Amino acid sequence: MRISELAGRSGLTLATIKYYLREGLLMSGHRTGATQATYGEAHLRRLALIRVLIDVAGLPVARVRTIVEVLDHPEPSTFESLGKAIGALPPYGVEREGEHPRAHRALALLDQRYEPDSAALAQLEAALAGLEAAGRPLSDDRLRAYARAMHTVAEDEIAALDAGSSSDTVEQAVLGTVLSEPLILALRRLAHQDVYLNRDRAG
Amino acid sequence: MRISELAGRSGLTLATIKYYLREGLLMSGHRTGATQATYGEAHLRRLALIRVLIDVAGLPVARVRTIVEVLDHPEPSTFESLGKAIGALPPYGVEREGEHPRAHRALALLDQRYEPDSAALAQLEAALAGLEAAGRPLSDDRLRAYARAMHTVAEDEIAALDAGSSSDTVEQAVLGTVLSEPLILALRRLAHQDVYLNRDRAG
Repeated sequence: MRISELAGRSGLTLATIKYYLREGLLMSGHRTGATQATYGEAHLRRLALIRVLIDVAGLPVARVRTIVEVLDHPEPSTFESLGKAIGALPPYGVEREGEHPRAHRALALLDQRYEPDSAALAQLEAALAGLEAAGRPLSDDRLRAYARAMHTVAEDEIAALDAGSSSDTVEQAVLGTVLSEPLILALRRLAHQDVYLNRDRAG
Repeated sequence: MRISELAGRSGLTLATIKYYLREGLLMSGHRTGATQATYGEAHLRRLALIRVLIDVAGLPVARVRTIVEVLDHPEPSTFESLGKAIGALPPYGVEREGEHPRAHRALALLDQRYEPDSAALAQLEAALAGLEAAGRPLSDDRLRAYARAMHTVAEDEIAALDAGSSSDTVEQAVLGTVLSEPLILALRRLAHQDVYLNRDRAG
């Protein structure tokens, strides 16, 4: 299809699509002349991904670029690609360097395998350090309870992944993360309301 | 204690403490003269709360003020106070007005009680709408699975609350939310790594 049809079908303006092309977020079309190119379903799908990352998840363009670069040039292993792409998602501002002693200890206790250089490890360290700084260090029992709940969630999510190429897996994992994280947090807060209101009724 | 001792024990500078006093985040001391006041344990505890909210959770001062106002002037019911204080926490930028049809339907399906005006309801609506917009609407089964996991988490968290005044409960819930949400998200991402690496090993 021509770029005008790509705009029509994606619901984006021509200017936006050209901006994504210039920024390297959308791959080039198949060149059919000096000033013409054609686009296909892969472009539509990429535009949908970009919109979710920018409009729904609020990612800066540079982070979207990191993710699409992983999709277009996957690392040797899917696991590495996943780490790089998921690591480009929020939260930003978490200190990634360092020893992360609390996180290593926690994951040893939980007997979980992990990538020592992952952004998620730094996130866990920051979360545990925050609890300590607030005078509310997490007990091993509570850590186990949280981890058990999230392990179940992760198992469900991975079971729901469609089989596909490495890029497909990464794209699904990125979308799954940016879309399910707000869902999980909303459901936690609403579950609090339910537990609290039912306790009041029972008490 | 004098304000200088309050600074020493809290680890904050005098300038920071005076700023918190001016901004209405820290309650005034007990006035002992034209230019002197004394402070107690409640002030130390408040400073610890303010630091977590600003330094760890990154709240803007105006949101911290909303929370401390709830603590100092609780609503008639603890549940209302909780809603107001938790509603002052991130995420910001979620549209709170509207009908929230997806969220109402989801909570009816889950048979959960909830506060229809709560910020969490708007968060759930935004999360479900985001999934739809990305062409990945959440099935009822997956909704139930997420909700079950977060209900277990909420039950554990509420069971761990110390009994106390309404303000104590609100303070614990606010701290619990800002500190446990990053923990939950980090553990979800790390659980993915564990499931993924073990699947690779098994496969």
